[in-house]
Amino acid sequence: METNLPPQGVDERAEQLALLQGMAHQRLTEPETGRLLGELGSTAENPSGDGKLSAIERDFLRVTRRRYDKAVKLPQDFVSDSARAEGLSQAAWAAARMNNDFAAFLPHLETMIGIARRKADYWGFSNPYDGLLDVYEPGMGAAEIGTLFSVLRERLGALLRKIQGRDPLDSSFLRQDFPLRNQKRFCQKLLVHLGFDQQRGRLDTSSHPFATTLGSHDVRITTRYSRDNLPSSLFSVIHESGHAMYEMGFPPELRGSCLADGASMAIHESQSRLWENVIGRSLPFWEGLYPQLKGSFPDQLAGVGVERFYRAVNEAKPSLIRVDADEVSYSLHIILRFELEQGLISGELALDRLPEVWREKTKEYFGIEIDPADPRSDADGVLQDIHWSMGAFGYFPSYALGNLYGLQFFRKLESEVLDIAGLVARGQFSPIKDWLRDNIYVWGCRLEPGQLLEKVTGEKLRVEPFLEYIEGKYPLDTVS
Amino acid sequence: METNLPPQGVDERAEQLALLQGMAHQRLTEPETGRLLGELGSTAENPSGDGKLSAIERDFLRVTRRRYDKAVKLPQDFVSDSARAEGLSQAAWAAARMNNDFAAFLPHLETMIGIARRKADYWGFSNPYDGLLDVYEPGMGAAEIGTLFSVLRERLGALLRKIQGRDPLDSSFLRQDFPLRNQKRFCQKLLVHLGFDQQRGRLDTSSHPFATTLGSHDVRITTRYSRDNLPSSLFSVIHESGHAMYEMGFPPELRGSCLADGASMAIHESQSRLWENVIGRSLPFWEGLYPQLKGSFPDQLAGVGVERFYRAVNEAKPSLIRVDADEVSYSLHIILRFELEQGLISGELALDRLPEVWREKTKEYFGIEIDPADPRSDADGVLQDIHWSMGAFGYFPSYALGNLYGLQFFRKLESEVLDIAGLVARGQFSPIKDWLRDNIYVWGCRLEPGQLLEKVTGEKLRVEPFLEYIEGKYPLDTVS
Repeated sequence: METNLPPQGVDERAEQLALLQGMAHQRLTEPETGRLLGELGSTAENPSGDGKLSAIERDFLRVTRRRYDKAVKLPQDFVSDSARAEGLSQAAWAAARMNNDFAAFLPHLETMIGIARRKADYWGFSNPYDGLLDVYEPGMGAAEIGTLFSVLRERLGALLRKIQGRDPLDSSFLRQDFPLRNQKRFCQKLLVHLGFDQQRGRLDTSSHPFATTLGSHDVRITTRYSRDNLPSSLFSVIHESGHAMYEMGFPPELRGSCLADGASMAIHESQSRLWENVIGRSLPFWEGLYPQLKGSFPDQLAGVGVERFYRAVNEAKPSLIRVDADEVSYSLHIILRFELEQGLISGELALDRLPEVWREKTKEYFGIEIDPADPRSDADGVLQDIHWSMGAFGYFPSYALGNLYGLQFFRKLESEVLDIAGLVARGQFSPIKDWLRDNIYVWGCRLEPGQLLEKVTGEKLRVEPFLEYIEGKYPLDTVS
Repeated sequence: METNLPPQGVDERAEQLALLQGMAHQRLTEPETGRLLGELGSTAENPSGDGKLSAIERDFLRVTRRRYDKAVKLPQDFVSDSARAEGLSQAAWAAARMNNDFAAFLPHLETMIGIARRKADYWGFSNPYDGLLDVYEPGMGAAEIGTLFSVLRERLGALLRKIQGRDPLDSSFLRQDFPLRNQKRFCQKLLVHLGFDQQRGRLDTSSHPFATTLGSHDVRITTRYSRDNLPSSLFSVIHESGHAMYEMGFPPELRGSCLADGASMAIHESQSRLWENVIGRSLPFWEGLYPQLKGSFPDQLAGVGVERFYRAVNEAKPSLIRVDADEVSYSLHIILRFELEQGLISGELALDRLPEVWREKTKEYFGIEIDPADPRSDADGVLQDIHWSMGAFGYFPSYALGNLYGLQFFRKLESEVLDIAGLVARGQFSPIKDWLRDNIYVWGCRLEPGQLLEKVTGEKLRVEPFLEYIEGKYPLDTVS
């Protein structure tokens, strides 16, 4: 679909995918599934140790029951109407974004908000937004996220202002011409360096980077290449490799079942962001790899030392676009969306005021003024992300929560595996990967995210580890 | 599976395919399908013109009923037992071939023969081999094929002896080093030259060339590249393009139904062989394309004129291997297999005598002595093809029948489209492709192969057009 599809094959492939998804949904919700689940009884009726079900079978029962319950509570008509509305909404969003025309998308957004509210209602949530969050992050409500995010917003905002008070970095060498062929060759070396298992996965090219699992031994990742943006391809490869290693790492006894899955969206992001940012944007990582990178781009990187490269790829510079954001401002982009989508779902934020409030918050969080007359004011503003057009309200928080989980996991990792910086500098990632496998991957989605975090770290979700990390790293001029 | 699969993903992908095939089989054979077919009645009960069913709907009913009848007549246990035996047999064949050990494969071959006989019996054929042929070539029995093949065997045998009496060609320049990158680049040019629609298809690399249809706008082909064998990649691309053009050419009103399919295996081969051999191995074709080929391999082809190139890629030289065979000996390889598999299925040929009879016929048809002590005597002999290990008895004749259909179609094409040689030399293939589309592709599998041939040419299947073509082309020294 995204890598090798002949251009005219798109519509047919979409139909084929819809058919398979419909069949999977039908099978999950058919009476026989309900009958079997009824026969097994609830997890509570199957206490561990009674010999009737193994521990894995009990978890399988819990996860399957959760999926079944969510699916059967939605009437068939509602599901197919929603799918159709979503198709129209995505197309309208793409056109509206191209034409910088929020008004053209507004009626579709209204429809998608209505669908989201009804969905949460069918699922029986009194607070609709909690119901939507539960899809992506089981067991975590808007109140808890709001508390975490309010601390993040304040501390990251303060950090950003502190950084903006310093002299700007000279990262101009990153905006040279980096031929695609050399980037592709280097990304292959990067896979080898990371120990990405190419017997069980591969790297392809697509317009948006992603990781996808076609089987436990067939986990594929993609990146994209721009001649004038070397970091884009590199860090996408590291990020998606983090997702892929998680997917490849589920234990054999979970394979082929719904338990061979990430614990949640945020836990998945914790893995990709841990590799991309905590490891991949660290100085030791590039101390190990930079000579190879310089070998691939001898002219472009002539005279650029590893520390200057490190600082350039970590430059914190607020911009309008979430996917291009640095580690400091990234979570602020998420918080902005979290606040807005909560208002949209509750109805407290009137839909026609959305672009205006977006601009206000952009000014407040990033100090950037969006001129409503700018021909990209909506395209780079309220229309920049696909999520709302798909009705995926409640998804955004996962990205920022992933940073929090990731740092709590990383602190525990550091306490159990000695000299992480040395291992990273020498490209010896096996002890790190083994630890992640034995402590996180091994569970698949047998544990809810909060349970997993507690099992691994003994803690609840906290902002401090992430904030200490980011406040220790920035401002960057502490390095050199 | 064959192009981009990570090596360790093979087993899982095979399971996934088996699951989908099983689901498709289950849906075809479920009682609801029988009920709907019963409600519609037979084609005879739905005469054309009664307004109940359109012409296409009547053909759809006929083809679906044929598929349904074939499928439901096989007991479920037999189908799954056969699938398992086939898996074991293929694995045993691959090992036996590697070890040149027919004896190790013999019990599996015996099982597959038993399965094939039972299958024909379930289908109600008194002559089991006719039942197997009917899968690939509806309406054509062993007697008719035997009659055609006996003429072919005699005339092609005589032609081969005549050619062997001449001075051998000097085709040594084809056995130089042709770097893979240049071959790949040239194959892309070849696609453009042929007018292969890259909006609706693409070329990849695999260990055995094939064409596969993932959708009417997603028809993919593969080729393989050997440094020391330039013709292999080129003619595989042309051959598979012939298959792909057929698949891309079904009319929109048949898309998504079982009627968007080739009329038979042999008709499909008629299209691929027409492009590969009649067009692709003609002198005019290379008069048009050779300058580009020379541009891709200036050193290797220095001093080699187009006529010498033409003769070299058409060299008729009997060898042991079917897939490497020239146009003259190819059909003899097929006839040998046809005769042997008939004997195997009827029981007239004892299984343990197979290698011996294979050697006798190889001596008789090609003048090649296989030494039973040779370490590749079985591997390059009776074990060389995968077909029997899969239980695909009755498949081989399609290849030779394709040559016959192809030439009858081509003669008709020549009578309706002027100056084919000129068009081919100028790379103007549109009139040829339009004719094939309007006369052959347009029918999908609405007509049985014999009906299609009669509709297009007004004739029954005959050997003369092919024999006249091949006896006109060979011996090659008539050119120059």
